[in-house]
Amino acid sequence: MSRSVNGLSGAGEWHVLEKMLPDFCGKRVLDLGCGYGWHCRYAIEHGAIACTGIDTSEKMLKQAHRQNASFWTEYRCMAIEDFEFEPETYDVVISSLAFHYIESFGDLYTRIYRSLTPGGAFVFSIEHPVYTASGSQQWITDENGKKLHWPVDRYFDEGKRDAIFLGQHVTKYHRTLTTVINGVIAAGFTLTGLAEPEPEKALLETVPGMIDETRRPAMLIVSAIKNR
Amino acid sequence: MSRSVNGLSGAGEWHVLEKMLPDFCGKRVLDLGCGYGWHCRYAIEHGAIACTGIDTSEKMLKQAHRQNASFWTEYRCMAIEDFEFEPETYDVVISSLAFHYIESFGDLYTRIYRSLTPGGAFVFSIEHPVYTASGSQQWITDENGKKLHWPVDRYFDEGKRDAIFLGQHVTKYHRTLTTVINGVIAAGFTLTGLAEPEPEKALLETVPGMIDETRRPAMLIVSAIKNR
Repeated sequence: MSRSVNGLSGAGEWHVLEKMLPDFCGKRVLDLGCGYGWHCRYAIEHGAIACTGIDTSEKMLKQAHRQNASFWTEYRCMAIEDFEFEPETYDVVISSLAFHYIESFGDLYTRIYRSLTPGGAFVFSIEHPVYTASGSQQWITDENGKKLHWPVDRYFDEGKRDAIFLGQHVTKYHRTLTTVINGVIAAGFTLTGLAEPEPEKALLETVPGMIDETRRPAMLIVSAIKNR
Repeated sequence: MSRSVNGLSGAGEWHVLEKMLPDFCGKRVLDLGCGYGWHCRYAIEHGAIACTGIDTSEKMLKQAHRQNASFWTEYRCMAIEDFEFEPETYDVVISSLAFHYIESFGDLYTRIYRSLTPGGAFVFSIEHPVYTASGSQQWITDENGKKLHWPVDRYFDEGKRDAIFLGQHVTKYHRTLTTVINGVIAAGFTLTGLAEPEPEKALLETVPGMIDETRRPAMLIVSAIKNR
């Protein structure tokens, strides 16, 4: 399975994420920010008995219905913040590169925790605080366009950022590592893993510019469980 | 109690660290990289029944003997890597801003885990990967010396860095967040907290340049326990 979110999939997100995902067999799954539904499909193909995918993009969900539908999959067009997290309803909650689009983080982790069954798993990826801090998400270059370094600034100033992706302005929300990680612990979860995906070695040699992905972290993957 | 390590204490390390420390009452404590022995003294003053502080600096230990000695405190001049971590010997292991000086990290966490009694606490601070990655630990400035941003580079290239501190070259070792955090989990610990200290508000107004400490994280504090 391949996925392309933010052009970062080449940095090996899926490769690492897959290793951190729990056994889906017989599980009820919730995918927060499901996009085209690739993870919902993956869950069902790996034995999940139900998967709910939510996303704000009607366009993406249309594609999800077309490409990644199943009898056991339900797609809903809504914001993560507006989702009613019913208690002990899901065995697995996943989210891939969606949380940095959420303005009001608030008690999100607590709501996810509540909606999980005891022993349930929570696995998510998010753009790295190093990646989101300064805002524009652009390398500092010299006059010849050579990438000198990645800028970090406004680190403790959490909130809205105006990022530039493929020439387009995109609104994202920066949060510190403390908010992202300690928030998971504070909600009651036991952290089971943390990873910062790097480009696979083969890609370094074949994909131009991929070497720059070794110079700063682009995303963070976190896995946790709700204790029984 | 005040402490000044790397000039970073102003960024509120102690303020945050203190909140993350366990109850020392009746505990046997090990301090890795104890420096002047302030934390050993703190542990004893807060009820610890024994404290071993180790450090490679004879000069610092001399001062520790002079200022922070007690009947229950033992200082030993040796490298953290060379310490024999006897099984289930300590109830608390602490380390303040020392791990980024260790060349061979290896199985350090596992050795600390083994040396703790069940339920034992492990709390440490380390220079932040954002702070250590590029190497020189200097702001990027414009021609007038104005601080433009903090550079991140070579993030996934772990190892030796030639840092500049007060005009002196100092050897440090950069490690990714994954190595620092996931290593703790992989060693068997349950993570109980993670914090990135920020300057206290009062200092922002009174100490020149302190505002820059809000622009990038300088250190990371991690607390964990060995399950019973």
